[in-house]
Amino acid sequence: MDDVNARATTRQIERAVEADDLAAAHDAVAELDVEQVVDVLERLGRTDRAVLYRLLPKARALDVFEQLDPSMQSELVRGLRDDQVATIFADLEPDDRVELLDELPATVASSLMRGLPPDERRMTAAILGYPQRAIGRRMSPAFVSLRHDVTVEEAMDAVRRRLHDAESVYTLPVVDDGRVLVGVVGLRDLMSAAPGTVIADIMNEPYWARATDDAEESARRCAELELLALIVVDSETRLVGILTVDAALRILEAADSEDQARIGGTEPLRRPYLATPVSWLVRSRVVWLLVLALGATLTVQVLEVFESTLGQVVTLALFVPLIIGTGGNTGNQAATTVTRALALDDVSPRDIGGVVAREFRVGLSLGVLLGSVAFVLTSWVYDSSVGAVIGSTLVSVCTLAATVGGAMPLIAKAIRADPAVFSNPFITTFVDATGLVIYFLIAKAVLGI
Amino acid sequence: MDDVNARATTRQIERAVEADDLAAAHDAVAELDVEQVVDVLERLGRTDRAVLYRLLPKARALDVFEQLDPSMQSELVRGLRDDQVATIFADLEPDDRVELLDELPATVASSLMRGLPPDERRMTAAILGYPQRAIGRRMSPAFVSLRHDVTVEEAMDAVRRRLHDAESVYTLPVVDDGRVLVGVVGLRDLMSAAPGTVIADIMNEPYWARATDDAEESARRCAELELLALIVVDSETRLVGILTVDAALRILEAADSEDQARIGGTEPLRRPYLATPVSWLVRSRVVWLLVLALGATLTVQVLEVFESTLGQVVTLALFVPLIIGTGGNTGNQAATTVTRALALDDVSPRDIGGVVAREFRVGLSLGVLLGSVAFVLTSWVYDSSVGAVIGSTLVSVCTLAATVGGAMPLIAKAIRADPAVFSNPFITTFVDATGLVIYFLIAKAVLGI
Repeated sequence: MDDVNARATTRQIERAVEADDLAAAHDAVAELDVEQVVDVLERLGRTDRAVLYRLLPKARALDVFEQLDPSMQSELVRGLRDDQVATIFADLEPDDRVELLDELPATVASSLMRGLPPDERRMTAAILGYPQRAIGRRMSPAFVSLRHDVTVEEAMDAVRRRLHDAESVYTLPVVDDGRVLVGVVGLRDLMSAAPGTVIADIMNEPYWARATDDAEESARRCAELELLALIVVDSETRLVGILTVDAALRILEAADSEDQARIGGTEPLRRPYLATPVSWLVRSRVVWLLVLALGATLTVQVLEVFESTLGQVVTLALFVPLIIGTGGNTGNQAATTVTRALALDDVSPRDIGGVVAREFRVGLSLGVLLGSVAFVLTSWVYDSSVGAVIGSTLVSVCTLAATVGGAMPLIAKAIRADPAVFSNPFITTFVDATGLVIYFLIAKAVLGI
Repeated sequence: MDDVNARATTRQIERAVEADDLAAAHDAVAELDVEQVVDVLERLGRTDRAVLYRLLPKARALDVFEQLDPSMQSELVRGLRDDQVATIFADLEPDDRVELLDELPATVASSLMRGLPPDERRMTAAILGYPQRAIGRRMSPAFVSLRHDVTVEEAMDAVRRRLHDAESVYTLPVVDDGRVLVGVVGLRDLMSAAPGTVIADIMNEPYWARATDDAEESARRCAELELLALIVVDSETRLVGILTVDAALRILEAADSEDQARIGGTEPLRRPYLATPVSWLVRSRVVWLLVLALGATLTVQVLEVFESTLGQVVTLALFVPLIIGTGGNTGNQAATTVTRALALDDVSPRDIGGVVAREFRVGLSLGVLLGSVAFVLTSWVYDSSVGAVIGSTLVSVCTLAATVGGAMPLIAKAIRADPAVFSNPFITTFVDATGLVIYFLIAKAVLGI
């Protein structure tokens, strides 16, 4: 079905569900693929979503469920019968199950855990034992491992036995007698090797992460090394799980959404925009807005100090938005660049000396460029003393803003705060207030007031 | 080698290369893995990088080369002998080769193309035929396809023959007699089926993209569907390539870096921060900074219009930074949220009515909250008429800013501009100027001046 037809069907289903015509909705939804059903569900309100979900054939219902965001999964679960929930829960992969558990109230979570078959419960509990942001929380314990001393033929048999239940059979960790990771073999290498070869002779150096490592950093590593799966080990290098590339992708997408939200001064939504209630949108923004407004009262206080100067030369007030705006922009540019470099692991807090030195030079260059343009224009429109004030203020403010903007994300990271949250709001407040002080001090000196 | 030792080795290599002690650098680099070598190269200057790269053993040199950003690859290529370049170029995968070609001067590119073996040249030319941002440009033509009427046994033989040269053997597109895509089979399904089964009986519905589809959107789809590879077809649904998940990851990472840079008002760097010369950093920021400063001159003009009002009540000047700052923050929050929703395909330009309605309500709620707090505080510190001016200005400015901020990314997308570039800078300028007009009009009305 092409996109235009899919969109028509979507609208048809929305109308049918809203009009309580369940037979029509049932027939229409049968024509959509999993991806399209997910789209429709995300656009419906909470109640209609549960109604439509219950109309899905059982086999497809699980596929659809797996594609929804965890927060939407948990909402949906509350609209289903207990036995339906138990079935879905048992059918999920252990790592997806843990993501859902994190969203559910503790009592629901523990009753669901009790309902699991013993094997699944054991695997789920193992993942739940790791800290919230650790990769152990997001790995899959359903891997196929090979012993280093078996032959290729025996290994292929082992793979064939696990075709139906393993998370991945394409990346095969190799272990010694004590379950310690000693290598890795791709299914492709296994297939091209002679049947009698011993695994130890064809295995490669494994790439691995510790289960307690940060989930985002491990996922980024899996992506950068272009691996189908990163192997996860415990503190004694014993194999405990694998992080498949699709799990890594989910982690990275959530992390990038979070970074972008925080750079824009909001909390991440964690669900599709149109499926987020207006009150949630308000909540995701109001705290930062209040904090920033509170910070901005600093500018009111600075201006009060210089109120008499302002009263003498009202012209000075005209340039206040331009100066603090330019300072804020320069600071945000530096902060955004360094925040991204941190996320990509291109810089670390110990590079602070180098970063500050570079940003100082960048800020000074930008300040001299902008300041010169401003000097010429302002001297022409007003007079050269006003030009000198504006020009030299821009040089100082840009230099200061870029330097502080570059340093802040690194300082935030060093004190274990989120660089994206901490940087841009702080910089704007700081640059606004100090920028104004610089401006009026230069003005008083140059204009002799 | 653990992280601390790796860092020590890195510094040792940097010093050795800078001191021209090539023997020491050679020995030290031999102790690092590919990932660590890439880190060291990214931290070195342009000349030292070429020197160190030439010290790598031939087998490892290609692995390292593949991990570098295309812009760094192209720089490195200019520091190597022609025959070295030709060898690397021939050994790259066709899609990686095209990425590098895009970075090289046209004459170098065409001479390298001429040096390729005919088969590789044909595959590379096919990719080069697609438009710049199309997925056809980033797919791999080195896939293994199966005919729908062969048996599982024959299919396994076909896979085994291609183990060494195919980009992926885990996702196997199924075609009919006319090369038209009719299904897909995973290697795993193939391995678990009886040898005599016909492929048509075990194949699944394929997920595919057209070669002319947008690269970022296709990559995002591959990620969201958690596929190991998305199949790429031409306008007649004939199989032309596959997009493997690792290629999709590279595309998404670049796209997210670009979005974040643009939201922060800079051009994307396309290489690691510390390896970017200061002059490039200045260039990536100066244009936006000038455009924004130019926009800010609008605020100077607005203030000039109200200069006499300002002269009468200097107190009004004190709140200028707070009001435009809050407006800008509210607008940026809305724009960032909607820009991300667009990137994730949660909204499209045809949702503009719904988005504007939601953002109006969000902005009004935020404005009423902030305005009430401001009214109480300002009435207490100054007097209730100033409180009324500030309070009602914040209500209007927040409502306006959120509404415009939410609409702009959708309008940008509709006119095919980058939503991230177009939105935040435009909003800040617009909200600053209109916010001031609203402020002074309310002030004149309330204070009777």
